[in-house]
Amino acid sequence: MSPLHQIQIILVEPSHSGNVGSAARAMKTMGLTNLRLVSERTDLLDEQAVALAAGATSVLESAERFSSFEQAIADCQLVIGTSARLRHLQNSLLEPRQCGETAVQHASQGKVALVFGRERVGLTNAELLKCQYHLHIPTNADYGSLNLAMAVQIVCYEVRMAWLALQEMPQNSPLADYPNQEALTHFFNHTERLYTALGFIRNDAVMPKLRRLYQRAKLETNELNLLRGMLTAVEKQLEKPRH
Amino acid sequence: MSPLHQIQIILVEPSHSGNVGSAARAMKTMGLTNLRLVSERTDLLDEQAVALAAGATSVLESAERFSSFEQAIADCQLVIGTSARLRHLQNSLLEPRQCGETAVQHASQGKVALVFGRERVGLTNAELLKCQYHLHIPTNADYGSLNLAMAVQIVCYEVRMAWLALQEMPQNSPLADYPNQEALTHFFNHTERLYTALGFIRNDAVMPKLRRLYQRAKLETNELNLLRGMLTAVEKQLEKPRH
Repeated sequence: MSPLHQIQIILVEPSHSGNVGSAARAMKTMGLTNLRLVSERTDLLDEQAVALAAGATSVLESAERFSSFEQAIADCQLVIGTSARLRHLQNSLLEPRQCGETAVQHASQGKVALVFGRERVGLTNAELLKCQYHLHIPTNADYGSLNLAMAVQIVCYEVRMAWLALQEMPQNSPLADYPNQEALTHFFNHTERLYTALGFIRNDAVMPKLRRLYQRAKLETNELNLLRGMLTAVEKQLEKPRH
Repeated sequence: MSPLHQIQIILVEPSHSGNVGSAARAMKTMGLTNLRLVSERTDLLDEQAVALAAGATSVLESAERFSSFEQAIADCQLVIGTSARLRHLQNSLLEPRQCGETAVQHASQGKVALVFGRERVGLTNAELLKCQYHLHIPTNADYGSLNLAMAVQIVCYEVRMAWLALQEMPQNSPLADYPNQEALTHFFNHTERLYTALGFIRNDAVMPKLRRLYQRAKLETNELNLLRGMLTAVEKQLEKPRH
């Protein structure tokens, strides 16, 4: 199953049916089809919604209804909640690009919920606490009032971009495994030790440059093992007696 | 002047005033304020436009009117045109992310036009030929009918992301200098020679991994020089006589 079909767009108590229709159209243009509505209202899929959905009425027709936030996210392995006021949630904050990447990565393992709150007041604190990650769209500080369907459009766009990037990766290659911080520290210490012994590192300027380079590259585990193997190869040669 | 103020969003003959209002709101949430309308119609800034602009009516109020596409782009140094049917324009195609980066880069030198065509038929071929670059939003092949204001939202979002990335770069540091392909080839050959001599490289599997890593990292010239210095340091040590 395509990862895109694992992703659920959840709108919590939207006020305007037009936003529901526009969100459906935004989703379908990016290849997403699963819409969930948390609402007791029966008029959210009215004529206005259908008109604004344009060619995406199929998304409205297949939309699932839930009477609570908990029920809407119950079968999802990953829940990402969106809100404008998230500054206190530093540790779990994602920008839209990371959100798209995270959603697509997790979609191979299970359902992913991308949750959008009420137009005026967003998600409640209780709802935000039930999300593993929190999405912050970095809007203009002077005017950050993004329309609900526009927020859905940006997030669905980033999901699609992450999905397209995944398609372009070589087929059948397992997802990369990344080293933890301890393994990276060992690698940097190993490098510093060896090149100090070689007389190449004589001041504090070299290691920060190497750290910056390899952190930017987001070293994969097999690459880290390769680089450590190269360090060890140099060490072994240095220890050999010369002819 | 902030690069964002150099960027002009140009709507060519929009049909629906609501899209003009929504586009204004989309722009302002991302910090863009310059809207240009190519249209003879006098009803494009009607009540519907004002209602959908929400807190961005200032963008509508300062919108500039032009009676032709040529006049609207006359003072712009860079013109990027958007359209859904661009497959034949391979050489000048940009995706939204590259479009944001290109627009922000050029905005330090002059005005940049991001042009959006008519809702149903987009830009004419004659108009597209007057654009240096062409923006293609990679929508769902089964349903790519992105609303005009949604397209504006995605592009303005990518402009903002590129601008924010620029803000995060260290102040006063010159833009990084990147090595050419020849310098990279020298580095890879140097690495292969040394580690083959060390007995570490014994097959064809190692170099493609290293190439992939360093190409992904987009090595800067000073980093390449550092890595080559490390190779030379190892070589020198190997040549030294042992005690």
